[in-house]
Amino acid sequence: MNAPLRSVSEGLRLSTPYLLFLGDIEQPSYAKTAFGLADWAPDLCVGEWSMLDGGITTGLPKMTPEQARAKGARSLVIGVANPGGVIPQSWVAALVEALDAGLEVVSGLHRPLSSIPELVDAAARNGKRLVDVRVPPENIPVGTGRKRTGKRLLTVGTDCALGKKYTAMALHRALVSRGLKADFRATGQTGIMISGAGMPMDAVVSDFESGAAEVLSPDAASDHWDVVEGQGSLFNPSFAAVSLGLLHGSQPDVFVVCHDPTRKQIIGVDGFALPTIEEVIDLTIRLGKLTNPAIRCGGVSLNTSALREAEAARLMEAEGERLHGLPVGDPMRGGRGFERLVDSCLA
Amino acid sequence: MNAPLRSVSEGLRLSTPYLLFLGDIEQPSYAKTAFGLADWAPDLCVGEWSMLDGGITTGLPKMTPEQARAKGARSLVIGVANPGGVIPQSWVAALVEALDAGLEVVSGLHRPLSSIPELVDAAARNGKRLVDVRVPPENIPVGTGRKRTGKRLLTVGTDCALGKKYTAMALHRALVSRGLKADFRATGQTGIMISGAGMPMDAVVSDFESGAAEVLSPDAASDHWDVVEGQGSLFNPSFAAVSLGLLHGSQPDVFVVCHDPTRKQIIGVDGFALPTIEEVIDLTIRLGKLTNPAIRCGGVSLNTSALREAEAARLMEAEGERLHGLPVGDPMRGGRGFERLVDSCLA
Repeated sequence: MNAPLRSVSEGLRLSTPYLLFLGDIEQPSYAKTAFGLADWAPDLCVGEWSMLDGGITTGLPKMTPEQARAKGARSLVIGVANPGGVIPQSWVAALVEALDAGLEVVSGLHRPLSSIPELVDAAARNGKRLVDVRVPPENIPVGTGRKRTGKRLLTVGTDCALGKKYTAMALHRALVSRGLKADFRATGQTGIMISGAGMPMDAVVSDFESGAAEVLSPDAASDHWDVVEGQGSLFNPSFAAVSLGLLHGSQPDVFVVCHDPTRKQIIGVDGFALPTIEEVIDLTIRLGKLTNPAIRCGGVSLNTSALREAEAARLMEAEGERLHGLPVGDPMRGGRGFERLVDSCLA
Repeated sequence: MNAPLRSVSEGLRLSTPYLLFLGDIEQPSYAKTAFGLADWAPDLCVGEWSMLDGGITTGLPKMTPEQARAKGARSLVIGVANPGGVIPQSWVAALVEALDAGLEVVSGLHRPLSSIPELVDAAARNGKRLVDVRVPPENIPVGTGRKRTGKRLLTVGTDCALGKKYTAMALHRALVSRGLKADFRATGQTGIMISGAGMPMDAVVSDFESGAAEVLSPDAASDHWDVVEGQGSLFNPSFAAVSLGLLHGSQPDVFVVCHDPTRKQIIGVDGFALPTIEEVIDLTIRLGKLTNPAIRCGGVSLNTSALREAEAARLMEAEGERLHGLPVGDPMRGGRGFERLVDSCLA
């Protein structure tokens, strides 16, 4: 999905393409990562590998690590999660087999790969990496606030988990389809696996939060766009620090507000009402202009997945009027509303 | 300085009192930590220990680890820094001697104590801790935004390094001297050493930043004050994420703005003008009311150390008038201005 990274300082960088590891899981719900990668990054997936005969499948070709390596695969991605995010002992021999076949191993689980001695030994023996996408790279610098060249777009939200990653990926795709130079800049583990690179912003030590966002979207050509995946919300009492460091460090020229019209309360905490879209626009401009005085709102990405089509269309039109003509679209539905949002971001 | 901590979940907790370690340093400028502790926390320091005869001195009694242990010392604090923050091999035998004498070892240097095998062995042999005050405790929870009982005061700033720690300590001392129940809540390594406890906020992973501040100032009696040391500035493009997480998590009832009238630019970065005091008040209220709708500004702490007394008095009066009667004091000078600031915080 990305052009070759310009320097290793841009964050984590995975070796692609992938073989998706399905472990010994029988329930598809535990294989969210594998299904997400097969859907969102089919070009990065050469196949899948299950330890079971007749287990779950993403529909990708079944192959062993050795066969995948011969087809060009460079990493085995753990596509399944156990409750608790542990790596069961029953998987270790399979992961060692992948390393011995010349693949790196990539994990987004809680327990670090490096805590398992057999994997550390096999990685060293084969000169291959164990990559935990929850672990930021070393030596992230403190942010400087220096204005960088190139254009940047950031998705922000009225809350967590309502479409910031999806919106950024859809906007990136729209820019590329219009012939523009653009990179999707992932800031969470799923986005990092989908794009093969990025910075796990929520795992960065606070002192280096804006510096990490600066590293993620370096100087670029003046007509190049970095489309940066947002995190959290300035109005979420748990995660606003992550959102502010990302805002200051990514110094967006344009931001898009992501919102779910059915959500009334901030999730995960008690007693916090969702902010209005106008409040998010106002506070994002006020805080964002510290590092980019020209920051502006490109429009609103409305997650209308809970609504029927006609209802969704009516709501988007009504919201657009209420917001004085600001473009309102749903990237999942596309169409004229979303194209107007893209136009507005580029204006 | 603090009442006994109510639970280990309140952050780092050092074992006091201390023996101050001066290493083999000959220049006083490298012993800032030792001099700071001798000045600010004389009650916590039983003595000093230099590896040199006739080296530098803080004026405290000279003693060996064994003698200090007999006088009640429970930790050896590394009071000196080498350029680069390393622990030279020439100190290791001395630190092992302290562990063998029954002291814990406390360090604020960059290189972790646990990276030195001889120290790890000696600590294990003696059942003593190696405490790096830059390293946050494990298992910090995500912030919840839940309103806690008790009162909280936070020092904020127009920038870093202009008196937030000093102001918080002076306000804490003033509250205690008025017979109120109060704890100083340290958020940086020097403050943690001075008070014997605290949370190194800048070293906490961003996702847990507000949660760490919640842990630092737990539920308390309704007439109890936590006086929380501020960090960074909402207007500093490097560190605003730290400041926002601390603001949201400490949910202050009252904040005091710390300012150095001679500073015109944010330090450490290029091209960022210092915000005005009014801008800091306004933005702190706007962001702070997310977790405490009753947040208010108690006044301004002006660092007038660069001015002569008459000049400082004139400036504080002029600033108070300009800010429509808001109390303006300098805790280093005390006097009526500072007492009015304390009154206003308690009002």
